[in-house]
Amino acid sequence: MTGFRILGICGSLRRGSFNLAALRAAVDLAPEGISLEIALIGEIPLFNDDVRAVGIPAPVIELAGRIVAADAVLIATPEYNYSIPGVLKNAIDWVSRCDPQPFRDKAVAIMGASPGAIGTARAQYDLRKVFVFLDAHVMNKPEIMISAAGQRFDGAGVLTDAATRQLIGQQLAGLRDWAMRLRS
Amino acid sequence: MTGFRILGICGSLRRGSFNLAALRAAVDLAPEGISLEIALIGEIPLFNDDVRAVGIPAPVIELAGRIVAADAVLIATPEYNYSIPGVLKNAIDWVSRCDPQPFRDKAVAIMGASPGAIGTARAQYDLRKVFVFLDAHVMNKPEIMISAAGQRFDGAGVLTDAATRQLIGQQLAGLRDWAMRLRS
Amino acid sequence: MTGFRILGICGSLRRGSFNLAALRAAVDLAPEGISLEIALIGEIPLFNDDVRAVGIPAPVIELAGRIVAADAVLIATPEYNYSIPGVLKNAIDWVSRCDPQPFRDKAVAIMGASPGAIGTARAQYDLRKVFVFLDAHVMNKPEIMISAAGQRFDGAGVLTDAATRQLIGQQLAGLRDWAMRLRS
Amino acid sequence: MTGFRILGICGSLRRGSFNLAALRAAVDLAPEGISLEIALIGEIPLFNDDVRAVGIPAPVIELAGRIVAADAVLIATPEYNYSIPGVLKNAIDWVSRCDPQPFRDKAVAIMGASPGAIGTARAQYDLRKVFVFLDAHVMNKPEIMISAAGQRFDGAGVLTDAATRQLIGQQLAGLRDWAMRLRS
Repeated sequence: MTGFRILGICGSLRRGSFNLAALRAAVDLAPEGISLEIALIGEIPLFNDDVRAVGIPAPVIELAGRIVAADAVLIATPEYNYSIPGVLKNAIDWVSRCDPQPFRDKAVAIMGASPGAIGTARAQYDLRKVFVFLDAHVMNKPEIMISAAGQRFDGAGVLTDAATRQLIGQQLAGLRDWAMRLRS
Repeated sequence: MTGFRILGICGSLRRGSFNLAALRAAVDLAPEGISLEIALIGEIPLFNDDVRAVGIPAPVIELAGRIVAADAVLIATPEYNYSIPGVLKNAIDWVSRCDPQPFRDKAVAIMGASPGAIGTARAQYDLRKVFVFLDAHVMNKPEIMISAAGQRFDGAGVLTDAATRQLIGQQLAGLRDWAMRLRS
Repeated sequence: MTGFRILGICGSLRRGSFNLAALRAAVDLAPEGISLEIALIGEIPLFNDDVRAVGIPAPVIELAGRIVAADAVLIATPEYNYSIPGVLKNAIDWVSRCDPQPFRDKAVAIMGASPGAIGTARAQYDLRKVFVFLDAHVMNKPEIMISAAGQRFDGAGVLTDAATRQLIGQQLAGLRDWAMRLRS
Repeated sequence: MTGFRILGICGSLRRGSFNLAALRAAVDLAPEGISLEIALIGEIPLFNDDVRAVGIPAPVIELAGRIVAADAVLIATPEYNYSIPGVLKNAIDWVSRCDPQPFRDKAVAIMGASPGAIGTARAQYDLRKVFVFLDAHVMNKPEIMISAAGQRFDGAGVLTDAATRQLIGQQLAGLRDWAMRLRS
């Protein structure tokens, strides 16, 4: 990665996930000087504090390291049962126990895609609350809640909706600006 | 189990979990005519919709079956990073995809124990929102938020705090009353 | 009012409020055996505990009495600044200090209309949390979040959208069923 | 006001409010170079969009102007019925309609005092969500949730609890640092 480096984390393990597709679109849409890499969370085991006492699993340490190394983090997540997907929250629970806690003082942006009408709003506000505890700085706007995702991505998972493509470009540029502003 | 059967689900995988200890206390404190069994979620794999397409894992089917069979459910959960533990949310995400959806129209109560001062309040309200989607009926009161848990359980995990013991007994009796009231 | 009596409370003071219009539609759409009356909150003063010590204002006592007398309550509210309108929360804060607390054990349903895309979701979940404290029983489903309200009501404030009209009828019938089920 | 100027807004109208007392303590505890002024919201009328069409009331314009003029804002608020007091939300709803929207890009800190055990946690997270919409930047830490307020203030409303006094001093200094960091 070169220039301003954003780590994208996908909240779904599904191969055809709309949110993974949104992150892939973000890789292409990143403005000049911004690069985006995608981290997957499928190898992160269930969080268990007894396991932690023995040793933090390698995939957790790797993810935490990538978060630390990144200039900012972009979470793209579906909403499951009106809140954060368990698998995403579990990954956050694990990395939050690493030292240094990787989200501390990190600039973060959130987006979400869903087939339905509300478009992950409920999950996103729960996630913002999590980041208060973790002392990350979540960008306020633009919020990206991609509803009716089935109509905005084509069959191959390519984001075809022009308005959403523009919004993602704005969020990436905004995230860089936000992170730069926080550097004192 | 006999009489009114409550399934207790623990939101932590830790062996010495205060919440598991609270559920164990609840087994003993259950009033005449109420029995409580504890379900563990450590065998539930990470939710992945691609896996679901192939077949729902056996531990998920088993947990869903136990929820369906129970007269009511009691969740005892810690709070991780100001929200629901990922492992608990993941278990809920999985069983929510079973048919029948096991929480539908089920009477539910929530308790939580934590070493800190706020005592799982944030996790509990996020969980209540989840149960709106799942169409479960979460009892309003008594809410049980056991703060400073280290002072209320002894070294062997026995709940020694008299006020908390009484509250748990009241919640179990209240959960039965709530479930009976919902039976029309 | 005759039959099953629902008190509708509007969360906006605006004369041309979409939510007031939705309540007016609900009056017409109420199934046989259900009647709906609308309560306005524009006369409720700002809550001040010093004032309460002197005496609860007459409009507060009147509203509390109407809630007590109703078989169920339907809140129709906009969302202001991502949460409950201050004027609605203020009315709830006042009546919550009456004796008896009028929402205690009351069946409640929530709907909301907004010109935007998310349609009052954020305000509705905050409101559900309020009703946990007040020990009301908020119906889970159907949730009614009328987005793009400008397209569903005509210039005279008449609800013309057929799907929304049907949903409101279902919610009213569901609220009666929910309230009857809670009567033990 | 001189140096770094913080506007304190109290979420309660009660003369003997613990939160007003906390703001008064903050005036005294402000570190060298920070001054704090208190704004009251008792003159802000109920928000009504029809009234706004005619003209924004003078007390609203005055409050908005004071927010704009301040370097940062400190909200001290009780929790009513598990959420933001209606009177505080109403004041925010009104000023949010002013031009410029006064909270836009403003550094904000939140504190709350309550007689109970949870100490305004629920109100504070709802308030943080409001400030996402208003595009203010709420400081993450320290969060100040003064529980059991009756034991921390004396009969004359003086904050006597040493730990809380220290925490308030830290929050004020932290708010200045946060605001300075956001100035690019």
